[in-house]
Amino acid sequence: MLSFENDYNTGAHPQILARFLETNLVPQTGYGNDEYCTSAKEKIRAAIGKPEADIFFLVGGTQTNAVVISSLLMPYQGVIAADTGHVSVHEAGAIEHTGHKVLVIPSSSNAAADATANPAGTAGKIAPAALRAYLEAYYADGNYEHMVFPGAVYISHPTELGTLYTKAELTALHEICREYKIPLFLDGARLGYGLMSKVTDVTLADIAELTDVFYIGGTKVGAICGEAVVFPNGNMPAHFLTHVKQNGALLAKGRLLGIQFDTLFTDDLYLAISKNAIDRAAELVEVMAKHGFATHSDSPTNQQFFAVSNDMMVRLAERVAFSFWENLDADHTVIRFVTSWATTKENIEELDQILAEITG
Amino acid sequence: MLSFENDYNTGAHPQILARFLETNLVPQTGYGNDEYCTSAKEKIRAAIGKPEADIFFLVGGTQTNAVVISSLLMPYQGVIAADTGHVSVHEAGAIEHTGHKVLVIPSSSNAAADATANPAGTAGKIAPAALRAYLEAYYADGNYEHMVFPGAVYISHPTELGTLYTKAELTALHEICREYKIPLFLDGARLGYGLMSKVTDVTLADIAELTDVFYIGGTKVGAICGEAVVFPNGNMPAHFLTHVKQNGALLAKGRLLGIQFDTLFTDDLYLAISKNAIDRAAELVEVMAKHGFATHSDSPTNQQFFAVSNDMMVRLAERVAFSFWENLDADHTVIRFVTSWATTKENIEELDQILAEITG
Amino acid sequence: MLSFENDYNTGAHPQILARFLETNLVPQTGYGNDEYCTSAKEKIRAAIGKPEADIFFLVGGTQTNAVVISSLLMPYQGVIAADTGHVSVHEAGAIEHTGHKVLVIPSSSNAAADATANPAGTAGKIAPAALRAYLEAYYADGNYEHMVFPGAVYISHPTELGTLYTKAELTALHEICREYKIPLFLDGARLGYGLMSKVTDVTLADIAELTDVFYIGGTKVGAICGEAVVFPNGNMPAHFLTHVKQNGALLAKGRLLGIQFDTLFTDDLYLAISKNAIDRAAELVEVMAKHGFATHSDSPTNQQFFAVSNDMMVRLAERVAFSFWENLDADHTVIRFVTSWATTKENIEELDQILAEITG
Amino acid sequence: MLSFENDYNTGAHPQILARFLETNLVPQTGYGNDEYCTSAKEKIRAAIGKPEADIFFLVGGTQTNAVVISSLLMPYQGVIAADTGHVSVHEAGAIEHTGHKVLVIPSSSNAAADATANPAGTAGKIAPAALRAYLEAYYADGNYEHMVFPGAVYISHPTELGTLYTKAELTALHEICREYKIPLFLDGARLGYGLMSKVTDVTLADIAELTDVFYIGGTKVGAICGEAVVFPNGNMPAHFLTHVKQNGALLAKGRLLGIQFDTLFTDDLYLAISKNAIDRAAELVEVMAKHGFATHSDSPTNQQFFAVSNDMMVRLAERVAFSFWENLDADHTVIRFVTSWATTKENIEELDQILAEITG
Repeated sequence: MLSFENDYNTGAHPQILARFLETNLVPQTGYGNDEYCTSAKEKIRAAIGKPEADIFFLVGGTQTNAVVISSLLMPYQGVIAADTGHVSVHEAGAIEHTGHKVLVIPSSSNAAADATANPAGTAGKIAPAALRAYLEAYYADGNYEHMVFPGAVYISHPTELGTLYTKAELTALHEICREYKIPLFLDGARLGYGLMSKVTDVTLADIAELTDVFYIGGTKVGAICGEAVVFPNGNMPAHFLTHVKQNGALLAKGRLLGIQFDTLFTDDLYLAISKNAIDRAAELVEVMAKHGFATHSDSPTNQQFFAVSNDMMVRLAERVAFSFWENLDADHTVIRFVTSWATTKENIEELDQILAEITG
Repeated sequence: MLSFENDYNTGAHPQILARFLETNLVPQTGYGNDEYCTSAKEKIRAAIGKPEADIFFLVGGTQTNAVVISSLLMPYQGVIAADTGHVSVHEAGAIEHTGHKVLVIPSSSNAAADATANPAGTAGKIAPAALRAYLEAYYADGNYEHMVFPGAVYISHPTELGTLYTKAELTALHEICREYKIPLFLDGARLGYGLMSKVTDVTLADIAELTDVFYIGGTKVGAICGEAVVFPNGNMPAHFLTHVKQNGALLAKGRLLGIQFDTLFTDDLYLAISKNAIDRAAELVEVMAKHGFATHSDSPTNQQFFAVSNDMMVRLAERVAFSFWENLDADHTVIRFVTSWATTKENIEELDQILAEITG
Repeated sequence: MLSFENDYNTGAHPQILARFLETNLVPQTGYGNDEYCTSAKEKIRAAIGKPEADIFFLVGGTQTNAVVISSLLMPYQGVIAADTGHVSVHEAGAIEHTGHKVLVIPSSSNAAADATANPAGTAGKIAPAALRAYLEAYYADGNYEHMVFPGAVYISHPTELGTLYTKAELTALHEICREYKIPLFLDGARLGYGLMSKVTDVTLADIAELTDVFYIGGTKVGAICGEAVVFPNGNMPAHFLTHVKQNGALLAKGRLLGIQFDTLFTDDLYLAISKNAIDRAAELVEVMAKHGFATHSDSPTNQQFFAVSNDMMVRLAERVAFSFWENLDADHTVIRFVTSWATTKENIEELDQILAEITG
Repeated sequence: MLSFENDYNTGAHPQILARFLETNLVPQTGYGNDEYCTSAKEKIRAAIGKPEADIFFLVGGTQTNAVVISSLLMPYQGVIAADTGHVSVHEAGAIEHTGHKVLVIPSSSNAAADATANPAGTAGKIAPAALRAYLEAYYADGNYEHMVFPGAVYISHPTELGTLYTKAELTALHEICREYKIPLFLDGARLGYGLMSKVTDVTLADIAELTDVFYIGGTKVGAICGEAVVFPNGNMPAHFLTHVKQNGALLAKGRLLGIQFDTLFTDDLYLAISKNAIDRAAELVEVMAKHGFATHSDSPTNQQFFAVSNDMMVRLAERVAFSFWENLDADHTVIRFVTSWATTKENIEELDQILAEITG
């Protein structure tokens, strides 16, 4: 069935599979000390313009968030996140499992505030002013020693709602974090789609400049698994490999990740395939609109949200796979369509045809 | 360079790569709900003769040990393991990271006791008598409520030293565990090599019968990553998927694991490629002996240990990759050679040639 | 200086000290197996009308919350609490330290809703409707397996804002918890003051009937330390003593706690001294009003809140100790005055005199 | 019944109770900021000769070990302890509960080695040579990054077996720890009894000089509860109070601990009452010998061990309370008699009388 269910419903980019075949029987040392990991790291350092960056490859997103965040915090510290943040809601308590509280900042109100003014969107983001207010209130509280210290800030870019930070916002967040001496961590599970968005003014080099640690998502952008954690300033915590191992996240055959990132960062493949998702998303929005489906919120990346009647949702679901997002009211539901590196023009045409049949 | 460094120094079995190519663009639901996982589970259930078994695919060995063990224990319980057990020594405290103590039973003394009597080896094993003695002493201690309750037993088969439990030993351990109502967990990171050993009387069906949970190792036996956790009696703990997610161990593209185990359990591929390692190991021992290197201890599987002078070790290391195992005395070192599913007859011949040149 | 800073600023009730002297040199077995603990448990069982209740004495409130909550939850579960709940805000992440998320339900909105209708107050409480809505939404979410399971409900009575649940509210919360098969835990750090409030319809026996576990606060109600955890239906988790020990919460000289609770539950001392705090609080409110200080919010127990100008706050602070509560606006602050078992009529008269001098 | 069961079977020293009465109604700020804590800290600083020492009062021994050790370690580190150490065996996994492994060094072999040569005893101790060997072997292991880093050393003084480190041994351990840059932590649950032993050459000032953190035990030496943690060089970890709170170990009424240590460190009361236990222990050994009971092992402090026939053990137990220690063989048991600050000459005389009756 035609599927816009998510951006991880297919395998790996064909060039990655080709490299698997090519390298398959070459003996390599384990645990990330293979030559493909080494090469991939060099290419990423070049792409971000940070020759001194430390890079570590992990397998998946929740794992990466838990491993990185717990490596940044002292036991008495927690991580600040938007209430809609993946670490707040959809990771089964992985952060708390490492002993740390997720300190939540409401994101919804700022969404309403200036949605029209910001083409990169506002929903799902931490407004710099909200971060500053949180930190000021914390240290102004006479009982703060009985509370959880804010020890790091987590943002996702794109956010869970498909929106993006502007360069000015990232700069402001980074400035506040430096002022309070807490690291800024950017979850880039869908980073490629953010970088290729038509409305963004943020580059990969900007992210390396304006965060203390971030990851370049592979699982949702062309890899079969894998996330590249980047400490841009050579600031990887001591004994990070042991920390990773202790969290059950160290891959024996590190080559699996090295080969994939080496391929994705050869000849700008990562950006090229990300652009495909953005272009297909624009076409998808157009096709949906043509058949009477307006987007529910502005989303400048590869996730698009539509409010439909429950009746229509059922009819659509018979022909095309998408995701339930949330109940809007008793009779309407918000649904999500996602494009990816693997979405083709033919997929969009097929959707057009299906919609014509359903709504015709 | 010719390598006998370990059994995870190459990629995946070629049939697995072929299946990756074949299935790559078929959209699938995530998190292990894809059709390949479903098919692989059916094949494993058939192979172990347990139609009611629950099966879950995880990525690596340390992850699997930590996820499974912490799912079996109450907070006040620990897991019993041999002092040489992987969870005791080489997993960077992954079990303790989940809050549980590893309760250690010495394995070395029983090694000495009856090594000659047991072709499957004794080193690295928990003797049934030692387990019973530990449990009896625990409950006889008037202060046992101030100690860590033994809540599960961990064994590895083959062990870290390449030895194997006999069916009689497994039966005895299982019986003791039932008596004390604690589950028996078998780490099968190298399970295939154990099953194909020429001296074993233990089958895969036996293991399903005589343990409460075990895993079938993929990473070291033909997969690029992946371990299949089996709860043979439909006894997977409630909400295991959420537990896995909380530990950062849930793969978005579960297909990566499903495809591999589906392939390995088609036409007995898993056993066939395991047998290759055993056959090559026998040839390797023969070639080493021919050039004057006797095995340091009996090891009936794919890991072989040799005591060499430090001078010889240095000369060998220039031509062939192997592992340091331990210092024997000031002038001698124990080194480890490992064969795998990927080791060829040509590799053995090349070793023969190298040894001839070095010792000639 | 005259102090209304909190209800733990003095030592222990004199009758407790007398019992310390009396019993001091009688040898007793440790860890809560002394005769005073045994006697105290019997008296509490009688007071709550539950002969089968399990009772365990712990040292302090945060410790009790963490030990009890973590004993109720599976690793993948969290505890529901009001956003103003002590476990949410003021325990330095003690719950998360045990690996569990605190799942927050907003309490503020219901405060506004029907404050006038409920003399027991609304602020700081979980409305039964809000609890039901939370649970329904959780299980209606298609992704709930990727979220933290609600595994217990935490309420405080009196709440952190001095308000109380009505019997009808407790009954409704209990009913919902039974429906969803999750335990209801009541934090009674200030329980005595709640039971003696003039507006409450909830008795100690009601609490034993309508919760699955609760604690009777000693530290803030006449003891120098100590909280009595009650599992009213003999439902203490297995090996609770070992769980307590593992959390560093098992007292060697359990007599310290046994003697105190045995004294407090002799001749209704606990209730008698709680009533003193309520009576003094009423007088305090009257005296404050007489000098122009109206209460900021209705609080039917021993904590009273007043909004004052910052200038007045500074002048008051020179003569009497109280607590900062929160900033109201740029020029005004909410401050808290607390009475206790130890507050005397003379203390109130002295306050009257001081206020006369300040405001005169 | 006459009791030599342990050193925590009575209440508090009478002077402490007198101070409770005296100070009971003086209002004090909570959480250790009261004037008694302040005064007690000053007196301890004077007693150890370290004006810059940081001091924190905690409630009990297991709590103190877990709180201190987890404050010293990074997540990937564990603590080295003797296999007989309290943290290894009798704390219900409290250290592992904080996520850290206890790395065990065998103590038994050195016990045999030079027991006669060292009047302070050898059993239960970490020999400096054994510590050095452990650390050297760890860093010599090519796989050490996959193991748990040794991050601190735990010793108890007196040990669990009543033995003592000599000043030379403490100096050697401290030197090794400095060399490897890991802190040395001394558990002084029974410190007073060690300091007053007739065979020791170690003073309180020596301990402050030769460790990085230690605690002065109150629970077993005259207090009803309480241990004073000392960071002699002002080296308390940042935000230690919050760490304590997070572990449920922060007492609201810190005065309970402050008053006790202030009393114990007034006019050398701590040492005076410790000497009483040592003197009574010498008399006890004499009385036991007179009736035919020789000590089972040399113990220079307040714990004395005797091997008796099981038949005699039963007869003794009818008249006097002592502790089971361990089974010696099928017919004999090692039992423990303990004196304390509260043991009187009359107690010893009564024992003499009882033994005469039993053995007569």
